[in-house]
Amino acid sequence: MNIKIADNCGFCFGVERAIGMAKKNDNSKMVGELIHNKLVIDKLKKENGIHILSDFNEVNKNDTVIIRTHGARKDTISKLEKKDANIVDATCPFVLKLQNICSKMSKEGYEIVIFGDKNHPEIDGVSSYIDGNYYTALSVDDLRGINLKNKVALVAQTTKRPKDFEKITSYLSSKCKETRIFNTICNATFDNQDSADKLSKESDIMIVIGGKNSSNSKQLFNIAKLNCENSYFIEKSNELEKSWFYDKKNCGVTAGASTPSWLINKVVDDIKNMT
Amino acid sequence: MNIKIADNCGFCFGVERAIGMAKKNDNSKMVGELIHNKLVIDKLKKENGIHILSDFNEVNKNDTVIIRTHGARKDTISKLEKKDANIVDATCPFVLKLQNICSKMSKEGYEIVIFGDKNHPEIDGVSSYIDGNYYTALSVDDLRGINLKNKVALVAQTTKRPKDFEKITSYLSSKCKETRIFNTICNATFDNQDSADKLSKESDIMIVIGGKNSSNSKQLFNIAKLNCENSYFIEKSNELEKSWFYDKKNCGVTAGASTPSWLINKVVDDIKNMT
Repeated sequence: MNIKIADNCGFCFGVERAIGMAKKNDNSKMVGELIHNKLVIDKLKKENGIHILSDFNEVNKNDTVIIRTHGARKDTISKLEKKDANIVDATCPFVLKLQNICSKMSKEGYEIVIFGDKNHPEIDGVSSYIDGNYYTALSVDDLRGINLKNKVALVAQTTKRPKDFEKITSYLSSKCKETRIFNTICNATFDNQDSADKLSKESDIMIVIGGKNSSNSKQLFNIAKLNCENSYFIEKSNELEKSWFYDKKNCGVTAGASTPSWLINKVVDDIKNMT
Repeated sequence: MNIKIADNCGFCFGVERAIGMAKKNDNSKMVGELIHNKLVIDKLKKENGIHILSDFNEVNKNDTVIIRTHGARKDTISKLEKKDANIVDATCPFVLKLQNICSKMSKEGYEIVIFGDKNHPEIDGVSSYIDGNYYTALSVDDLRGINLKNKVALVAQTTKRPKDFEKITSYLSSKCKETRIFNTICNATFDNQDSADKLSKESDIMIVIGGKNSSNSKQLFNIAKLNCENSYFIEKSNELEKSWFYDKKNCGVTAGASTPSWLINKVVDDIKNMT
């Protein structure tokens, strides 16, 4: 079996930074999962005593509370400030930029369209910074029938596909007199998607490693699946099945931005041993 | 022969306004053709003594000079002001808005992309209001290879097709971090195109009336041609040929924004007499 790892995959800058910040704060608390990877979260709990906050009543004065890479809602930050917590903000700088754009544009009277998943914590957080009307959309269909203002600002969840973003862009540009388009999709996302696209075209089996809740990992899986029918999405190496590899020659491996390199290496080793 | 005139066609608001302004200024001079219709220009010359300015040396103090619907270059206006001419500005308000957007955006540091024809007087005029880098493009291909800045403002010639505008929008939104999109295509253009599209689908012959240099009339012809193979572009009714109508049942007629209604009626009458 030829195994090839995608040129760009795994930990992005924002994830790496957040884990570094967390590791410097043993016994602190996280607001939600720092990153969308269960194994990493378990490791932080075991090795650094960092727990996920289940209730704001748990927070005492001077407790260290870490804000996840996906950011937090504005009111969450206010609550923590009121508790005099020591806030460690591990929000990915690209998400922070997205929050700032939404805040600024809505104050300038633009109606906001977010290309993203309203149930994803990044978008839940971002939307709280909007001071006015906003809509979330996963496709052009979600926008049809909405009577948009003449001044609209479009932003994207940092982990979305540029091609889908372009479709929404086209739709808005002919509907609205002025559209301000902020391409807030992060470069790591873009590079990982590009590499997954390339590798899946050369592979007869693709393994995509990522957290089940991870938006960017799911995108990678969707891209791989388009080019390679035998694509599988796993979170841990013990999900691998020997039968998948029967009669296959070229196995491509890629991983979401929240997947640590040790896990990628373990998956590769396990495939080697299995085939 | 069933003859049907498009629901929306002919004189637009800007053209109507400009002719009204010209007619109030007998014996004045025009900077280029007021509108792209030779017959109307000839009529203004004959009935109102209005000539096209051939040289700025012709302009004397207090002479009345009319600016065409397509607008004029900034330096043309300056020259006329220096001559102490009495300027009657018949620039279409939608073109004026386009000039203002370009001026404002370039001052704010945006690189300008104009979806339009650099040889058209509207775009020649508009480009003179840009205080910085700009590019004109008729398609995405014209932009490939250009290393655009991160902040780009896109505008369109007022008479272009929204569908083609959308393609440029898509391209820019994935290339640039911020794109400000101003849909400056005027509603009359849009409505006329829509009606031409609809009518040409029901017709087995289409007659498009418009000046040979008229951008919006050429667009109407291109749209008609897509749906109805037997589409003809004429400037005057004496260009009609009897043979075109042989074996045809439904004739659609549309006309560009610079085509007067008397000419549309004459063409319809001549078709009736011919068939």
